[in-house]
Amino acid sequence: MSGFKGLAVPGPTNMPFEVRQAMDVALEDHRAPDFPEFTLPLFADLKKAFKLENGQVFIFPSSGTGGWESAVANLLSPGDKVLASIFGQFSYLWVDMCQRFGLDVDAIDCEWGTGAPVELYEQKLAADKEHKIKAVLVTQNETATGVTSDVKAVREVLDSLGHPALLFVDGVSSICSIEFRQEEWGVDVAVSGSQKGFMLPTGLGIVGVSQKALDQRPKPGFPKCFFDFDDMIKTNKDGYFPYTPATTLLRGLRASLDMIFEEGLENVWARHHRLAEGCRRAVDAWGLTLCAKEPKWNSDTVSAIVVPEGYNANDVIQTAYKKYDLSLGAGLSKVAGKVYRIGHLGYMNEIMVLQSLAGAELAMRDAGIPFESGSGVGAAVEYYASTGQTTALAAE
Amino acid sequence: MSGFKGLAVPGPTNMPFEVRQAMDVALEDHRAPDFPEFTLPLFADLKKAFKLENGQVFIFPSSGTGGWESAVANLLSPGDKVLASIFGQFSYLWVDMCQRFGLDVDAIDCEWGTGAPVELYEQKLAADKEHKIKAVLVTQNETATGVTSDVKAVREVLDSLGHPALLFVDGVSSICSIEFRQEEWGVDVAVSGSQKGFMLPTGLGIVGVSQKALDQRPKPGFPKCFFDFDDMIKTNKDGYFPYTPATTLLRGLRASLDMIFEEGLENVWARHHRLAEGCRRAVDAWGLTLCAKEPKWNSDTVSAIVVPEGYNANDVIQTAYKKYDLSLGAGLSKVAGKVYRIGHLGYMNEIMVLQSLAGAELAMRDAGIPFESGSGVGAAVEYYASTGQTTALAAE
Amino acid sequence: MSGFKGLAVPGPTNMPFEVRQAMDVALEDHRAPDFPEFTLPLFADLKKAFKLENGQVFIFPSSGTGGWESAVANLLSPGDKVLASIFGQFSYLWVDMCQRFGLDVDAIDCEWGTGAPVELYEQKLAADKEHKIKAVLVTQNETATGVTSDVKAVREVLDSLGHPALLFVDGVSSICSIEFRQEEWGVDVAVSGSQKGFMLPTGLGIVGVSQKALDQRPKPGFPKCFFDFDDMIKTNKDGYFPYTPATTLLRGLRASLDMIFEEGLENVWARHHRLAEGCRRAVDAWGLTLCAKEPKWNSDTVSAIVVPEGYNANDVIQTAYKKYDLSLGAGLSKVAGKVYRIGHLGYMNEIMVLQSLAGAELAMRDAGIPFESGSGVGAAVEYYASTGQTTALAAE
Amino acid sequence: MSGFKGLAVPGPTNMPFEVRQAMDVALEDHRAPDFPEFTLPLFADLKKAFKLENGQVFIFPSSGTGGWESAVANLLSPGDKVLASIFGQFSYLWVDMCQRFGLDVDAIDCEWGTGAPVELYEQKLAADKEHKIKAVLVTQNETATGVTSDVKAVREVLDSLGHPALLFVDGVSSICSIEFRQEEWGVDVAVSGSQKGFMLPTGLGIVGVSQKALDQRPKPGFPKCFFDFDDMIKTNKDGYFPYTPATTLLRGLRASLDMIFEEGLENVWARHHRLAEGCRRAVDAWGLTLCAKEPKWNSDTVSAIVVPEGYNANDVIQTAYKKYDLSLGAGLSKVAGKVYRIGHLGYMNEIMVLQSLAGAELAMRDAGIPFESGSGVGAAVEYYASTGQTTALAAE
Repeated sequence: MSGFKGLAVPGPTNMPFEVRQAMDVALEDHRAPDFPEFTLPLFADLKKAFKLENGQVFIFPSSGTGGWESAVANLLSPGDKVLASIFGQFSYLWVDMCQRFGLDVDAIDCEWGTGAPVELYEQKLAADKEHKIKAVLVTQNETATGVTSDVKAVREVLDSLGHPALLFVDGVSSICSIEFRQEEWGVDVAVSGSQKGFMLPTGLGIVGVSQKALDQRPKPGFPKCFFDFDDMIKTNKDGYFPYTPATTLLRGLRASLDMIFEEGLENVWARHHRLAEGCRRAVDAWGLTLCAKEPKWNSDTVSAIVVPEGYNANDVIQTAYKKYDLSLGAGLSKVAGKVYRIGHLGYMNEIMVLQSLAGAELAMRDAGIPFESGSGVGAAVEYYASTGQTTALAAE
Repeated sequence: MSGFKGLAVPGPTNMPFEVRQAMDVALEDHRAPDFPEFTLPLFADLKKAFKLENGQVFIFPSSGTGGWESAVANLLSPGDKVLASIFGQFSYLWVDMCQRFGLDVDAIDCEWGTGAPVELYEQKLAADKEHKIKAVLVTQNETATGVTSDVKAVREVLDSLGHPALLFVDGVSSICSIEFRQEEWGVDVAVSGSQKGFMLPTGLGIVGVSQKALDQRPKPGFPKCFFDFDDMIKTNKDGYFPYTPATTLLRGLRASLDMIFEEGLENVWARHHRLAEGCRRAVDAWGLTLCAKEPKWNSDTVSAIVVPEGYNANDVIQTAYKKYDLSLGAGLSKVAGKVYRIGHLGYMNEIMVLQSLAGAELAMRDAGIPFESGSGVGAAVEYYASTGQTTALAAE
Repeated sequence: MSGFKGLAVPGPTNMPFEVRQAMDVALEDHRAPDFPEFTLPLFADLKKAFKLENGQVFIFPSSGTGGWESAVANLLSPGDKVLASIFGQFSYLWVDMCQRFGLDVDAIDCEWGTGAPVELYEQKLAADKEHKIKAVLVTQNETATGVTSDVKAVREVLDSLGHPALLFVDGVSSICSIEFRQEEWGVDVAVSGSQKGFMLPTGLGIVGVSQKALDQRPKPGFPKCFFDFDDMIKTNKDGYFPYTPATTLLRGLRASLDMIFEEGLENVWARHHRLAEGCRRAVDAWGLTLCAKEPKWNSDTVSAIVVPEGYNANDVIQTAYKKYDLSLGAGLSKVAGKVYRIGHLGYMNEIMVLQSLAGAELAMRDAGIPFESGSGVGAAVEYYASTGQTTALAAE
Repeated sequence: MSGFKGLAVPGPTNMPFEVRQAMDVALEDHRAPDFPEFTLPLFADLKKAFKLENGQVFIFPSSGTGGWESAVANLLSPGDKVLASIFGQFSYLWVDMCQRFGLDVDAIDCEWGTGAPVELYEQKLAADKEHKIKAVLVTQNETATGVTSDVKAVREVLDSLGHPALLFVDGVSSICSIEFRQEEWGVDVAVSGSQKGFMLPTGLGIVGVSQKALDQRPKPGFPKCFFDFDDMIKTNKDGYFPYTPATTLLRGLRASLDMIFEEGLENVWARHHRLAEGCRRAVDAWGLTLCAKEPKWNSDTVSAIVVPEGYNANDVIQTAYKKYDLSLGAGLSKVAGKVYRIGHLGYMNEIMVLQSLAGAELAMRDAGIPFESGSGVGAAVEYYASTGQTTALAAE
């Protein structure tokens, strides 16, 4: 078929030309004497992207899942108790991993469409007088339902209770897109991947770890080698890696960080909010609802849109993909067939969101879902035209 | 700024990844023994793209303008009389070139928004009993106004009158996008460029010449060397060129032709028609008009949209470009400030047209032009959803 | 500095344009309905590259090290006894990983420059009447010393003794370059990575596992999730992955396998042998020796060249890199400063080897090492010219 | 076949990754309001590359041949007398073009292997008391024979005689590679192309014109449009072009100029000299000779190597190409079969020249030409190792 494919899934995201080009190079020797001139500033800048001051950001040639595993394997021990909550496919999978590693997981089951239950966390932590809970897990952005949790509030609960548990955050689909301040919020582990806000291909697990967490690593903990923080610490210090790193992705990461910092991290967050809001206006104009139950849960990186009873969201997705070259995200697990998802994160501007919305209109029309053609796009156009531009916000 | 730029000008067009990649190669030796294995089939396939059976398609490392010049320099002599018509910037420039080459040009001035005046051509040709007119010039698609002329009708006039003049066609923004049949329509010279329907960067003038025209080349005619058909004929025969060819563009052309033939040339034409019609529905829904005066002049590759009195089309264009990353085409010369143009040719699908329309809505809203937000996109969505897909057409 | 850099390290290897281009694409949705049309044939073809008939080849977004870890974590249990040998940095690291996972490793220390000690393996296995040894580890190609071990012979020992231990092979720098027949040789786990014979960037651990090994996986074994074979088996079956795969690398892998099969796997092996032999002739002509102690250990993918007493191999490497844009491999650990390495694997032809040799001559001359300039290149030229071409061999 | 192809022809040259990437972008609107921010500095920097202070450098989407034609068409009139000399295929073709344009060419026939005959030029010009000679043509670097002429000396002759003829220089294979100073040497037209020292694909004719030449353009002169300096002057002034420019090549040109200026133009010249000298040492060591008759004619961008009587240079070229993936340049016209050419211009370093020499040795060995294997490479290695590095020279 003719024409560019639209990629409106919540990761992998659209890749800037600058990033693509930075990776389109001959392979290089990762033991070269000048390799550290490239890697050391990269490590430093990654910390800025996480807003982490003390501690280290590790880069594993893996994925967000690998990032999770590195956190568990390095910072916990078999049998450790952790507090978690499940409100979507990705928060579920994280809990599942913990259980498979033999942790004692207290996983609060929440309604899908809500986020991390801060009050319940508070109750559980308050009740844990012996401090058996070693880590509290929060999925900052549940990609499956388009829900954002309040990470900062969880830190405040821990602090107010004086509870020493580590705070683990799944920031795979939030970091570099939604406000995240690792140092200020006292996040001990923040896991991300290359294929979301970093605008890269999949292939890197990126894990920010606080100095506090690094200092209290259990010995021996779990067996580990590929994901061992120690090996990374020893070699990263001089700009190298314990095994062959994915150098092309590292080159792409350099380009990506350059773009993010040029725009300004806060401006990137503001842009995501504004673009997401346009999408939400469209959903409203269509007469549809989001999976997120309340505005406070709305995610600025992905919107999960509920199709009316009697319709199958997968028809929309299949039509969009096969007839109109547009990839929308499918509903996963509990919400399969009930929602389709529009990702609006990473390298993104108004006309890209409008294209996704127009394509969704086309596919919904084909699927017979009732709504007024053009109403969603029109609402977003109105919103964007009336709110000025990202760069205007940036200048404030 | 973040996000992909939208390119909605009527050329250069959007370049497929396949084409971009085909050109992203190390440079090669154009005198290599196996170079003809690449070029000879390319030459043959180019003729298919022009639907030319007898004659030759020449590839000059230049542009459409260079293609025009090659036609004049090789097929006419100083002082020759030619019949032409002006109804837009590009038909004007072609006449201007002829005059600068010392031709005796009878250029009919037509209202911008109309096309080649077949009846007037007929009158002039009928009156030319001595056959002083050596060539008749027709701009098949006037890119400046979004107007398509009826080339076939001009051939029929020539035939019915038994007039021996050559038929020259400017097909820069039509060939490979709009129906064109060089052999069947008896077109003696058809000039195109790489950056429109061929979906390539600028850099090639592509000129189809009938055997009849080749056989009656005047001697000595104009001085020429770079654009000399003779040198091309002698070297192309064996798969080579008289001077270093633009090999990367030739590699891209191979990829482009492969894509066009895989889709089917007729399907490509049908796709352009359907996509253009969606754009026209949008213009109508906005309550605006096209520069084209009647539906019969409507171009399937570009729509020139007239802004209401009291508004400046350049405001729309500037806003689209600077605030929304969308390149729209400007009005040129007589229609500067009065129209903006949306190109819908080349590598193009529904969601790309919808993106251009949505971006135009954003920019028109900013410029204060009155219309209902979403109405244009909605009309196009309705049209596309109700007409099925290109490939469905293709299967008929 | 001007000019292409030469990459003559034993991995990452030189990347073909075809592979680079296959990866230089927009990101894609790994949950798309047509994704399995791409992945299922890829999985099948990977088995051909390993010459594996029963069993499965797993692709992890990681590295060779990750591949090792997946083998240990899935196929062994804490405390299991394994038999191994150390004769270079990479065989050492593998043993180290086993120890960190709490295995009981019987690691035979061999002279660097020799390979896996088949006789000693035989003695140890014969003495293990109770079959406590669960796995025998063989590094087929020790990248640090340029030594190739006889994997087939180890299988014969196991078979002749009727010993049920699994046979684990590190094929990171051998698979797709040196003869390897997983099914025929009864190899239970073969670990490779993307950045050697597969001619890709680093980022994939590729692990071939025999059906026998899959069938006798211990439960529960080690905790695992990212590297869990089960999750892969369940999802790969339908063409998907348990978590976001590194799709760009998979696209590159497709291109790489296409190239390998077009040349013919046996022809690829023959080409590596011939190119390596030219390098060895050069070393001989220089009056130098290989780290490999006997011709039977010679590796066809990398030559480790011993500099004369009193010279530092690192001077050669630094000069080559800094003055002449050529990356040579350094000696690691025990042989640091004593050897430099020339990789001749992957995408490689005569003139690339000759360039590495000429560059090594330049750097050795700068480092003051005595030899006759041009002698090495001349010997290789003589060898290549007198032995005909790869494709000639292939036609035999 | 496996492995990178070697490109050792004297253009197209090897293209740096930086240049390739700069061109590997989406197409852009050449009428965009910010396009001049890109073009105006580019025009200014091009003048620096020509060392031209007054006047203008024009960029035509064409080739070196197109550049020649623009010079003739804009600066001369039919029947004008020009003084030229022929000593190779390209100086011949230039004369041929002049004749086809109806100029009165006094073309001195020189032995191939020599350069522009300054003394004969002096005699002819001295005898031209009426100043009928309007232009003197000098091919600075005759690519066919590897001969460099003394442009400065011709200017000195003109000045000492007070002869007003314009000085036209073919700098296609010299500019940006060999010393060239347009302003200082009083060169009125200097023609170059994109595919040599500019390290780009073919597709641009680049023409530096002195203010003096611009000021005395004849009216009406030749008919012209595509190559009209006037149209370029009018539009370039504001950063635009009279017709669609080859924007991708312009983006590549930006990258190329950045690289050249970063290295330093004088350093680039010095590097070419040193690399060429290594090649000449090799030819000497092989016992062969250059086509250039005396050292003063030696070209630093290409060496034409004479094969011994009884051998056919084309055998060397065919073998190199078909068996060893190396493109060598063929002998053209009078020297066909007698010479093969090694280009050493553009993006080039020591190991690239050594690779070409080693490949030439392989091919000559196959062709049965007697010489000692390795002797040429060895001589070049000795020369390079003993003369230190480009950057060292630059620092002097």
